[in-house]
This record gives sequence, C-alpha cells and structure tokens, in this order.
Amino acid sequence: MEVIKTIALLKKRVKKAKLDGKTIGLVPTMGYLHEGHLTLANEARQENDIVIMSIFVNPTQFGPNEDFESYPRDLERDCKLAEPVGVDIIFAPSVEEMYPTDGGIAIRAGRQSEILCGASRPGHFDGVLQVVAKLFHLSEADRAYFGQKDAQQVAIIQTMVRDYNFPLQIRTIPIVREKDGLAKSSRNVYLTEQDRKEAPAIYESLNIAKEEYLLSRNVDKAIELAAKHINEKTNGRIDYLQLLSYPDLKSVTDETTHFLLATAVYIGKTRLIDNMIFLNKGVIQHV
Amino acid sequence: MEVIKTIALLKKRVKKAKLDGKTIGLVPTMGYLHEGHLTLANEARQENDIVIMSIFVNPTQFGPNEDFESYPRDLERDCKLAEPVGVDIIFAPSVEEMYPTDGGIAIRAGRQSEILCGASRPGHFDGVLQVVAKLFHLSEADRAYFGQKDAQQVAIIQTMVRDYNFPLQIRTIPIVREKDGLAKSSRNVYLTEQDRKEAPAIYESLNIAKEEYLLSRNVDKAIELAAKHINEKTNGRIDYLQLLSYPDLKSVTDETTHFLLATAVYIGKTRLIDNMIFLNKGVIQHV
Repeated sequence: MEVIKTIALLKKRVKKAKLDGKTIGLVPTMGYLHEGHLTLANEARQENDIVIMSIFVNPTQFGPNEDFESYPRDLERDCKLAEPVGVDIIFAPSVEEMYPTDGGIAIRAGRQSEILCGASRPGHFDGVLQVVAKLFHLSEADRAYFGQKDAQQVAIIQTMVRDYNFPLQIRTIPIVREKDGLAKSSRNVYLTEQDRKEAPAIYESLNIAKEEYLLSRNVDKAIELAAKHINEKTNGRIDYLQLLSYPDLKSVTDETTHFLLATAVYIGKTRLIDNMIFLNKGVIQHV
Repeated sequence: MEVIKTIALLKKRVKKAKLDGKTIGLVPTMGYLHEGHLTLANEARQENDIVIMSIFVNPTQFGPNEDFESYPRDLERDCKLAEPVGVDIIFAPSVEEMYPTDGGIAIRAGRQSEILCGASRPGHFDGVLQVVAKLFHLSEADRAYFGQKDAQQVAIIQTMVRDYNFPLQIRTIPIVREKDGLAKSSRNVYLTEQDRKEAPAIYESLNIAKEEYLLSRNVDKAIELAAKHINEKTNGRIDYLQLLSYPDLKSVTDETTHFLLATAVYIGKTRLIDNMIFLNKGVIQHV
C-alpha cells in the first residue's frame, strides 16, 4: 500500500493504471476509519484492479460553527486498518494541495440539499459535491463507493453523476444493522439503556411505511402510520420522516420507480438517522 | 466519419477507444462550421488518435431574449466540412438526449462571468460550463480545443478544469487575423468601407497596451494609451478594454504571470472583440 500526498503523484499512478487497462475503485472518506469504511473498501477490492481510498477532511463541507478543526484525524491508524483490506493507494492530501486556487466557480447542490439533513446544514452538500467532483476527476475511477446510511449524500452525488455524465458508477453499500434492526452508528454509544430499547422502533417504522405505501400507494397514510409507531414506541422526537423519489428527492408521483424513505429521530439526546431505498416492483416481493 | 446522436452509442465508442489505449481530442461546437472550427479540428487531428466534434446548440447558454430558436443549424453541411479535416465522430445529440433529467444541481461560473462580455449575458457562462462539463465527461477527451477569440470563455473553462481537476488539457488556438491585424470574424461583413478602415486600430491598441504595460508595469497608463488610440483612429465606442490575470480574470498584481488583455469595441453598429494572452516574460522578447 502506498500513501500519496500530492496530486501530481496520484495522477502519475492513475495514468499508469489506465494505460495498463486496469479498473479503479475509489473510496472517499474523511478518515478515522470504522467498520463501515472498511466494508466499502472491501467491496471496492472485489470489483476493481486498483483500490484508491482518499482520506481528506474537507473544509468546504463544514459550516462555520461545525467541527472542522476538532474532527478526529489519525492517518497512521487509518493506514493500519486499510492495508489488510487490500487498499492499494491512500490519497491523503493537505487542504493546500486540494485547494491551491479558487477561481470562484461553484457547484450548487440546489433543491435536493434544502431538505432532510440538508435543511440544518446550508452549504454542506455544495462542499460535498465540490470535493467529490475533484476526487472523481483525480482518481479517474470506474466506480466510487458510498454508504447508504448517508442516503441524501448518495442521492445528490448520484444526481450529479447522472446529470453531468461523469464516467463512473456510484456503488451504494447497504446499511449494516444490529440484530434488532437498529442501524449501526458511532452515535449508538450515546444511547442510554432505555434509549437503546426504544431505538429499533425507527427501523420498524420504516418497514411499516414501506409496506403501507406499496399496498395503498398513499404517501400520507404511510408516513402517518410510521410516525405513530415511533411516537408510541419511543419517547423520541421526529426531525423528519419522508418518502421521496430517488435519486431526485422529489415528491412521489405515479411515475416514481425508485423510492427513498428517510428519517431522523432524536432518541433522548441522540439524533439517529435511517433510511430505505426500494423499487416500485418491491410490491411484488411482498405479495 | 460516423455521426452519433445518442449518448449510449458515444459512450460505447469512447469505451472501445480507451480500452485500445487511444487518445481522444474533443472539438465542442454549436455547428454551422466556419474556418475557425476547422482549424480547431485540424489541430485536434494532429494531436490525437481519435477526433470527436460535438455539434450541439446548447439552450442553457442562451438568455431568454437571445437567438436560440433562430441560431443556424445545418448538420448535413457541417458533416461535409468536417469529414475532409479528419474528424472521426460527429456527436450531434438532441436537446432531450443531452438534458433528459434535471436534479437542480448547477455549476455557477461566478465572479469571472460578471465582467467583460459576461456583464451583458447573465447566466451565459453557467450554461457553457454545464454543457462543456457534460461533453468532457462523455468524450473522456485527453484534450479539448477552443478558439482564443472567445478568451473569456476559454479562461472560465480553463479555471473549471484547473479548480475541479478535470483530467484533460485545454488547447487554445490563436486568433486568425487579416493582413492588417483585424481579427477574423463572421461579423466583419457588417463593417462599412469606412468601418473596415478603422477596425485594425483595435488590434493596434492591444499591442500598444501590452508594450506599455511590459515597459512601465502601469495598468492604468497602458489602458489609457490603448483607449486613446482607438478614440483617435476610429469613430468607435469602447464597450470594455481591460488587462487582467489569466485565467482567473482578477486585477493584475506583482505576482501575475499570465495576462489577458481584452476589448470589445463598437465600430459603427458592429461590436468587435479582440484579445491577447501573454506572459510576464513577454518583456524579454521585446527587449
């Protein structure tokens, strides 16, 4: 495994790989790797000749009052975790290396970024698209890997790739869950014993909404039943709970074929997110 | 030469070319080809294994009161002109083929687009960047060819390529001039006999400004002398006449190494543009 800190050297390696006809998988991360990142890398390892993992805490996706400075960084530890999974190249540039110039050209995530988690993080998804576009170009990846846990992020990136014809495939890795369905998250350690008992109701509620929608095609009713379940089974507070088209994140219509059901719920003081992406034909699987 | 109208087929051809290790040159045009386009294609022919010329009148770069509908189109004629130059693929998609979806993600050209020609065409360069980003991705070109005549366009595209790390090179083809220095333009036919006599003063004035700047490093004086020349030698009206950094289009400082000197002048009723791009070390060539 090679650790590369400059764009010039990365481009050299990528050029060589391309000339040799090798496929490239990119795993973009902000480092401080956990199991989820390694699952992405493992998937990339299986599908590509060369796996590049980027480790870059991207300042442009943090708001002024967010934790850019204090975000945890430990490249040495990350390297030790990434190597056994079969990562070939760690790309860990400095901020100056990634943003040496700024001509003022901006990518605006637009409508999709103003809802769900984006509503409370103005500019966040603009920054995500900026760094992701740069990494896609630098790596010349054939495939890039993201966790479905951050469904809005994946949807917006997917939309950019589609609408701007980026020559790569976005691969989404399913949410890893505890036995009782709770989505794995580094925030789960903050849950009290009582919180932890209540938390699986989030995933249950998504299943309820999905079943109801595929049966009745009634969005309002599906969301209402799901919200009722959360309110009955937990002391939590729903931040959002929405059924939208995927990846456009528009209101569901008769023409919608791909759906995102997404929620954020405060259980005690801990904000948990969860989601499901499913197809129209999902109904068949459930008959 | 093959004429391709769908993205799917273009991608198939590009994929094959890439697998064969071939280099690709892209010549983006809006069709109705003239000598300038053919010069671009000829240059692309010399530097690449495969030459793709796109012919697409891009609606998103036209303002609501501009001539999108009436813009001349003649694909048959264009094909007859492009084939002898050695174009391999004409990519001529419909508007629906290029913009089947719109997730609302926008590229904003920003500061650079609010000056020079952009000042009177709000949104124009946003549309240019949108279509150019799509074409860069679709063609997976190693090099893309633009005429320096549209210097602001080239500067903004160059800036996007630089700041977003697009894996291709922008090649700029010099302005073709008449013997007396007047930049060739399809608009020159609108000049009266008197206008035509006055018009070379535009290029003369650029030379005056460049010489003066490289001698005195005084931007104001350089521009003043050039403007004086135009005002003395013509009955024209200067729209703009500016010396800026290239490609950022910022005010010149001691650190500036690349310069754009650009002007637009109404000679009679005809608006003519001209420019020069030069280096700091240009001074050496002139000693």
